[in-house]
Amino acid sequence: MPSYSPTTFQALTYCDQVPNFLAGTDSPRAYLERCLATIDEREPVVKAWVTLNREGARAAADAATERYKAGQPLSPIDGIPVGIKDLYATRDMPTKMGSPLYEKNWPKQDSASVQALRAAGAVILGKAVTTELGMSHPGPTTNPFSAEHSPGGSSSGSAAAVGARMVPVTLGSQVVGSCIRPAGFCANYALKPTMGALHRGERQGFSQSHLGVHAGSLEDMWRVAHAIAIRAGGDPGYPGLVGPATLHAPVAPSRLVVIEAEGWAATDAASRAAFEGVLAVLRDAGVEIVSRRDNPVVEAFERAIGDSLAMTRDICAYEMRWSLDNLVAEHGGGLSDSMMQRHILGQKVTLDEYRALLVARDHAKRALLAVAAAGDAMICLSNVGAAPRLDNKGTDSGIAHTTGLPAFNAWTSVTGAPAISLPLLAVDGLPCGVQVIGQQHGDHALTGIARWVAETVLAAERRKG
Amino acid sequence: MPSYSPTTFQALTYCDQVPNFLAGTDSPRAYLERCLATIDEREPVVKAWVTLNREGARAAADAATERYKAGQPLSPIDGIPVGIKDLYATRDMPTKMGSPLYEKNWPKQDSASVQALRAAGAVILGKAVTTELGMSHPGPTTNPFSAEHSPGGSSSGSAAAVGARMVPVTLGSQVVGSCIRPAGFCANYALKPTMGALHRGERQGFSQSHLGVHAGSLEDMWRVAHAIAIRAGGDPGYPGLVGPATLHAPVAPSRLVVIEAEGWAATDAASRAAFEGVLAVLRDAGVEIVSRRDNPVVEAFERAIGDSLAMTRDICAYEMRWSLDNLVAEHGGGLSDSMMQRHILGQKVTLDEYRALLVARDHAKRALLAVAAAGDAMICLSNVGAAPRLDNKGTDSGIAHTTGLPAFNAWTSVTGAPAISLPLLAVDGLPCGVQVIGQQHGDHALTGIARWVAETVLAAERRKG
Repeated sequence: MPSYSPTTFQALTYCDQVPNFLAGTDSPRAYLERCLATIDEREPVVKAWVTLNREGARAAADAATERYKAGQPLSPIDGIPVGIKDLYATRDMPTKMGSPLYEKNWPKQDSASVQALRAAGAVILGKAVTTELGMSHPGPTTNPFSAEHSPGGSSSGSAAAVGARMVPVTLGSQVVGSCIRPAGFCANYALKPTMGALHRGERQGFSQSHLGVHAGSLEDMWRVAHAIAIRAGGDPGYPGLVGPATLHAPVAPSRLVVIEAEGWAATDAASRAAFEGVLAVLRDAGVEIVSRRDNPVVEAFERAIGDSLAMTRDICAYEMRWSLDNLVAEHGGGLSDSMMQRHILGQKVTLDEYRALLVARDHAKRALLAVAAAGDAMICLSNVGAAPRLDNKGTDSGIAHTTGLPAFNAWTSVTGAPAISLPLLAVDGLPCGVQVIGQQHGDHALTGIARWVAETVLAAERRKG
Repeated sequence: MPSYSPTTFQALTYCDQVPNFLAGTDSPRAYLERCLATIDEREPVVKAWVTLNREGARAAADAATERYKAGQPLSPIDGIPVGIKDLYATRDMPTKMGSPLYEKNWPKQDSASVQALRAAGAVILGKAVTTELGMSHPGPTTNPFSAEHSPGGSSSGSAAAVGARMVPVTLGSQVVGSCIRPAGFCANYALKPTMGALHRGERQGFSQSHLGVHAGSLEDMWRVAHAIAIRAGGDPGYPGLVGPATLHAPVAPSRLVVIEAEGWAATDAASRAAFEGVLAVLRDAGVEIVSRRDNPVVEAFERAIGDSLAMTRDICAYEMRWSLDNLVAEHGGGLSDSMMQRHILGQKVTLDEYRALLVARDHAKRALLAVAAAGDAMICLSNVGAAPRLDNKGTDSGIAHTTGLPAFNAWTSVTGAPAISLPLLAVDGLPCGVQVIGQQHGDHALTGIARWVAETVLAAERRKG
């Protein structure tokens, strides 16, 4: 039986080790070797990686080690080992996108975020498993806390590698719920930033996709996000992530807005009880908890986001049409059943239906602004329960989705709101995440609330335990 | 000496031939063969094409011919031969992007617009020359009205192929002035649509790039744009080009707003006189001409767009950084001097400077809305004079730019306003364009004004001549 506990699990962290690197009592190379040892131990079961570049990583870690020795690190994250979701291009490794059709795909390029990480001294260790083209069909990865359970998706390897303590940080991405959901299942801290806040590279085929960061601590999460932002900025035409290099001080919110979205109705009893426990702790700590039943603005927002799963499914199916048409024309096969379902759906969505969906999405974005009047931030579970078993036959609005329902996630992708997942709960011995959600461009302030909520809830758990 | 005349030049048109295809007195295959004969005759000097797919085009034209015989054309543009700017992917031809670094680039994919054209029955005849990566460094193309002059750029081959009567329609693209400027130099009708209105494919690295259409007539131009829009829509997240399948009826505007932008001060005396002649004709026809001296709203707009050349140069340099860094890292060389200047500039533009430029661009977009109060549409030259000689050493805000100054174009790219170039003038025996510009999403209404302006000006020219 899995026996994860949020109060005893010690995730891998990096930035807190920097004083040791500077003092010479530890080094990025030694840190990397510990990561590689963990990978050797756990990878046969967890299967988080598509490609590892051990020698390239060692060379980069040695260079960082020399810089610390000279007292000249390139940045606050110099030497940090990072895994890159295998949708993002890396010049020294293939980018297979979770599809046999991209088995030989090796653009000799670094995506903007990878360029930024290298410029900051980060060690690009490998490519983490993604589901097929970042959609539903799972890769081989298992949950690091139970080999019979899913790590979630589509950032499966990114979440599992952090949960297995193989690396302190990975990059993921989220179109619907692909960062926050697996982060919840794998006990990560994770940032799905404001829409457009971190550069996705030149392929911008989806209108609501986000580059995200998975980490073992809020500090590492933010520092990596910040290091990318100041070097690569946001998506073309976006101002990029704003805020200083370090995490916000903890901030106790006066009011938090509970969002039910499409997730609460789908949440199992044990996870509901666990979340209610979090709310009870927050109330005890003086936070007013507001819901759709307390404030008509919240109710209006809940209605505006009430069809987010179907909205994202259809918007994405329309936007993927051209790529899928090309793959079908070139290869004839090689796509999963669930991807073929998306292909068929994309051909059915008309331009006017797509336009209507954009109107509905704009409405949800406007409604988000109004929720600021109801509380300092929003809160809900990261997932509708602990990770599903690998042999589940789950569906996501009609498309097979075995990596868990993104029913608490689609609305944050639709509205472009920043979300941070916190590893605060155990359900049936598996991790279950709680996310706090803010207003667009409020990512940094949100880290302050996230930090206070995490510290407050974990402290209460420890007192109980 | 060149001796182009807007009243005697007969451009190649297609949609007006459809009745003959249906009657069996002509066919798309015969039409294509006439295009190929013109290409054989003129291509050695004009050099508009990178790649031609004669046999693929013949097969597609034969299929269209059969459909007309059966009285079942796929669309109003079934069988139309189209040239594709060599920045857009075509599965049956390489996409070399005007750079030796992409000499072997052959993605087996059709860009969304090419997919749409094929679905409408269009004949994808070849890839038209682009300047290096769509920027300044010219390709081999010459002006179809004088081999000693530039065709303009970056859509050099697209504009020249239409001007040389090789094909009735080509696709171009515009980040700064790459559709409208060469269209003016080569006597095309051309649409640079509302920002986002026609799908650019998955590579969306620039935040102000547009897919455009070059044609021998307004009717062909609009029908092709419409055929793409209803099948491929706009860029991800945009509603796409709106309007019916056919051109708007001619509309006489009550007031037209003359925009000086950064172009008027750079315009030579002969071109100024020619444009003043156009305004005189329009005034005689009852149109009130308004300028920055008549209306403070226009003056405010002129100020808002007054630095558009530098703004686009720096925004684009920042947004190209990641791609250029990759090319330099992979190849070490192979970029032109002007591209290396852009690379250096891109590394100098800071994130905060980029953010400030986005603010200035947003300001220009907002100011555009106010100009609607001053007139029914805007009007200015498409270029600051006739095409420059091929041996010119022109500059564009400090970067060598030998395909002509985009000083009348950058502001329409900045604001995302739709622009239609009309081949109304001859200067020194070479074509010079006049463009009308509308409000975002007013593309179709703008075709009505464009049509009336073209008919009115050309009729007056004929009366004079």
